[in-house]
Amino acid sequence: MFRTHTCGELTTAHNGKIVTLAGWVQTVRKFGSITFVDLRDRYGITQLFFGEALNNDLDANPLGREFVLQATGLVRERSNKNLNIPTGEIELEVQTFTILNKSAVPPFTIQDDTDGGDDLRMKYRYLDLRRNAVRKNLELRYAVNRSARNFLHQNGFMDIETPFLIKSTPEGARDFVVPSRMNPGQFYALPQSPQTFKQLLMVSGYDRYYQVVKCFRDEDLRADRQPEFTQIDCEMAFVEQEDILNMFEGMIKTIIKDVKGIDYDEKVERMTWEEAMWQYGNDKPDIRFGMKLCNLKYPAHTFPGRASLESLISGVDFKVFEEAETVIAIAVPGCSEYTRKQTDELTEWVKRPQIGMKGLVFIKCNADGTYKSSVDKFYSEEKLKAIADAAGAVAGDLVLILAGAEERTRKATSELRLEMGERLGLRKKEELKLLWVLDFPLFEYAEEENRWVARHHPFTSPKPSQITEMINNSPVIDNPAEYLKHPYASIKANAYDMVLNGNEIGGGSIRIYQKELQQKMFEALGMDAEEQQHKFGFLLGAFEYGAPPHGGIAFGFDRLCSILGGSESIRDFIAFPKNNSGRDVMLDAPSAIDAKQLQELQIQLNLK
Amino acid sequence: MFRTHTCGELTTAHNGKIVTLAGWVQTVRKFGSITFVDLRDRYGITQLFFGEALNNDLDANPLGREFVLQATGLVRERSNKNLNIPTGEIELEVQTFTILNKSAVPPFTIQDDTDGGDDLRMKYRYLDLRRNAVRKNLELRYAVNRSARNFLHQNGFMDIETPFLIKSTPEGARDFVVPSRMNPGQFYALPQSPQTFKQLLMVSGYDRYYQVVKCFRDEDLRADRQPEFTQIDCEMAFVEQEDILNMFEGMIKTIIKDVKGIDYDEKVERMTWEEAMWQYGNDKPDIRFGMKLCNLKYPAHTFPGRASLESLISGVDFKVFEEAETVIAIAVPGCSEYTRKQTDELTEWVKRPQIGMKGLVFIKCNADGTYKSSVDKFYSEEKLKAIADAAGAVAGDLVLILAGAEERTRKATSELRLEMGERLGLRKKEELKLLWVLDFPLFEYAEEENRWVARHHPFTSPKPSQITEMINNSPVIDNPAEYLKHPYASIKANAYDMVLNGNEIGGGSIRIYQKELQQKMFEALGMDAEEQQHKFGFLLGAFEYGAPPHGGIAFGFDRLCSILGGSESIRDFIAFPKNNSGRDVMLDAPSAIDAKQLQELQIQLNLK
Repeated sequence: MFRTHTCGELTTAHNGKIVTLAGWVQTVRKFGSITFVDLRDRYGITQLFFGEALNNDLDANPLGREFVLQATGLVRERSNKNLNIPTGEIELEVQTFTILNKSAVPPFTIQDDTDGGDDLRMKYRYLDLRRNAVRKNLELRYAVNRSARNFLHQNGFMDIETPFLIKSTPEGARDFVVPSRMNPGQFYALPQSPQTFKQLLMVSGYDRYYQVVKCFRDEDLRADRQPEFTQIDCEMAFVEQEDILNMFEGMIKTIIKDVKGIDYDEKVERMTWEEAMWQYGNDKPDIRFGMKLCNLKYPAHTFPGRASLESLISGVDFKVFEEAETVIAIAVPGCSEYTRKQTDELTEWVKRPQIGMKGLVFIKCNADGTYKSSVDKFYSEEKLKAIADAAGAVAGDLVLILAGAEERTRKATSELRLEMGERLGLRKKEELKLLWVLDFPLFEYAEEENRWVARHHPFTSPKPSQITEMINNSPVIDNPAEYLKHPYASIKANAYDMVLNGNEIGGGSIRIYQKELQQKMFEALGMDAEEQQHKFGFLLGAFEYGAPPHGGIAFGFDRLCSILGGSESIRDFIAFPKNNSGRDVMLDAPSAIDAKQLQELQIQLNLK
Repeated sequence: MFRTHTCGELTTAHNGKIVTLAGWVQTVRKFGSITFVDLRDRYGITQLFFGEALNNDLDANPLGREFVLQATGLVRERSNKNLNIPTGEIELEVQTFTILNKSAVPPFTIQDDTDGGDDLRMKYRYLDLRRNAVRKNLELRYAVNRSARNFLHQNGFMDIETPFLIKSTPEGARDFVVPSRMNPGQFYALPQSPQTFKQLLMVSGYDRYYQVVKCFRDEDLRADRQPEFTQIDCEMAFVEQEDILNMFEGMIKTIIKDVKGIDYDEKVERMTWEEAMWQYGNDKPDIRFGMKLCNLKYPAHTFPGRASLESLISGVDFKVFEEAETVIAIAVPGCSEYTRKQTDELTEWVKRPQIGMKGLVFIKCNADGTYKSSVDKFYSEEKLKAIADAAGAVAGDLVLILAGAEERTRKATSELRLEMGERLGLRKKEELKLLWVLDFPLFEYAEEENRWVARHHPFTSPKPSQITEMINNSPVIDNPAEYLKHPYASIKANAYDMVLNGNEIGGGSIRIYQKELQQKMFEALGMDAEEQQHKFGFLLGAFEYGAPPHGGIAFGFDRLCSILGGSESIRDFIAFPKNNSGRDVMLDAPSAIDAKQLQELQIQLNLK
């Protein structure tokens, strides 16, 4: 060992002891013939004192930032104590030292607030990783990993490794593929998730499975997506949805307790998908604050059975509302005194291409009980009051109203709600709020192909009460314009997402375990019997030999860590992330390979 | 939940309780109007009793092997107890039952001694995994995983995930590559190990790293190799070789204790590579038994400084020994009375192509003190006694002698020793014997290219005392015939293998952390500056900014599990293994992919 102690553990209890430390030079401060050095390792920082006797040695071997230094000496109390750090009461009076390795001047400072830009830090990731801020993120990641594993172990789950070189069955996202040299012309695929394998393990009787596992998706990368990412992947047999919800609610609460020290005692709230869309315009609502959507107008077929508020806005000659498919209001608390400049800015905000609305209607609910709006020439004060009341506004609030096509308007209102929540400080970083979203639609409609696609994945079970309906009806959509009237449009799935502060952190479902139902599902997705057999013959085969009822869930580990760490970016929580083009700029990968490698794989480039 | 208890937990303590079980039908035994069913899950087997009242129900819904059954009833004491299983004192008197899923007749029996052949079991791996024997293997694997993680955690190691989509730097084995759609013409590689990443983490100050991680090698598969395999991968900074040996000796002992319940108290033996080759003909000797090699003749340059025994066999006109480069004897205990038939059989055994020797010389050390040999016409009894004595033989032993070219003969003698150890029952399954093999040569000589290759890998450090020798000498080999005289031939590495019962279970080294030395190493392997920069620029870069001394080790997790589980085959310890052609016969992977996929990747097939 090059050290007897770390740079984070010496205190006055060690006074008078001879110890050896090794670490990196954080700072060098020379005062005449004495020198102070802050020595850093992952455990902390210890001050080294070099007295006059070492002055010549130091002059002959000058220390620089990030030099690797080993120093032996006497622990002694400091005169000038720093009580902000655990080692701040002592220093090491150096007797001998060795420079273990030198360092060039780093391209950016190794400090919490570094002067390095994103690109530079990614290129020199090995230096960026030395920064406290990044180290704490990776430590948090490890703590979450450890906590999840311990919880799952204590609950009888087994970590079982599933293969990485599997079969390409693209359905949804693109597979990364791997040419096989030993099987020329054939390719493996990297798993998008271990989905079918964990289901096979249930068929095999393993009953409670987990894995913290890398998954791969060859997608065009949006901000904060990675081509490889990690899941906490779990599956259970002989369970119903309720069992899974309880188990994994327990897991997340345990992680929050272990990692953040927070007792999340309350029951996790639950909401159906339809309710989430209706009240928040979003299937992963942030319920740390209210400001719920007030649906003034909406397509009745997407929200069947909901009472209509259309009378509140109709009967006047306001074409914008009249012609819109959807009109939604939110009541923003305490903002009735927004100036013209402020409401104009909000209007510009909703008109940005990312939001895409044509304009914004507002109603100021003044403190004196009067109402003032941007549509005063259409709506009487009485009507404005009725709308504001419906939106739940009270005196002092500002009602914002968006109108337009259903999907865009709902999404825009949801974005506006989140933005206002953010601006008003209602999305508190230190507050953690979990939510289960339930009863997702089983299918989505794919307009271009006039067919159904699986909203979750093709292995998700419909609600038990709707299985017969699914089996007895043909998936064919005769009239594309009226697809919403097809029986499949109203089939709900036994699927669930866990949402934390408005982010989806996990999702799963009860699976199909009946061969006939699985075949019907594949058929509904446009797969004929031959394609089913080619792609999923092993799974259909397995369902012939006694498949138990089962279900599971997968948590996005990177995302979970970033939220618990209070960051927006998952990249901050990955040791060696890729950039938005899927490149590792440190390695300079991907890169060209040798002609010999291509030859051996019996493939060649075919560049456009 | 479909059950209140598992099939492995009910005892007489539950008598009189109403419980619900769910599992698979192992056997059905009908006696008139009553029926016994053994219900199985991963926890055990419980007997179900169906009385007369359920007879009609059972007739209407007949049960078959591997049906998934849910049964509710009363726990009661059995009249006919089976004390071999934990649940053998009770049975469940069924009140109601539900067939949760049916099963076709499985293609082989789900029993310890199955009638299924290898191919069938691999195709239906999901059924094979139901067998007790396989389940126990996977449970052992999980126990090893858990034990290793706990040990490492307690010793301050951090699990840090390294990327799977990296850069192709083939050096040794072939990389699996992954075409990048977003970077046309470029490829990622799958990691053969996280070697350079864990070193970067040391440079970043993470100090104690581990990962249980998948690695990939595109090699022609020998028996019992897998294209994807798992390592317990570890690295430490500020350590010397001794620290690593102690730490990981501790880890393996902890695993042996946790998983096998065995206290491995003794210090793990250590042996230099040269000693292992000299005494066992093998760099991973099985030291559960002796029967060491007696080197009667050997090339002095490969074993410099060893005393020669050549006089014992020289001076007679026996051409076989005279012309051989190497002559090695072993003394097989208690086999002096082998018949002619038995010695002939041994001769045939060494002449098999896998061993490749031309013949076998033996000396019987008879109980009465006389000696009899297959070379009596060349060697006097006195000379035979001298040879036998040198080999450590005593009365009753059989001395076996092989002669030929050095490498082949040494290897053959090692194989013969292991074979005789096996035949004589000296390789006891229940005995675990660890060994560190140390001081490997840093380089091997590649004849075809007349250059050096790294024996371990290019990041392994020479012995500190030999660093100057390495830096100050050119790696160029001027005279291929005398490559052994090149200074590089005698450089030893700070590398170590851990051997368990004659199997390498782990290997590692102290790493190079000095930029100049790393460059010299790359140069020695025939890489010019440009290639160094292209392939390993990031590592050389990292070494410029304060790299600490560091080293590590990686354990072959699959192999470790198989040895602890008492099996020869790693496949038995992998949930979904590939066959010797690298195929997953259950998935039927690899397979052809769509033209569209190839097009998007901008590659095409180029089949020979």
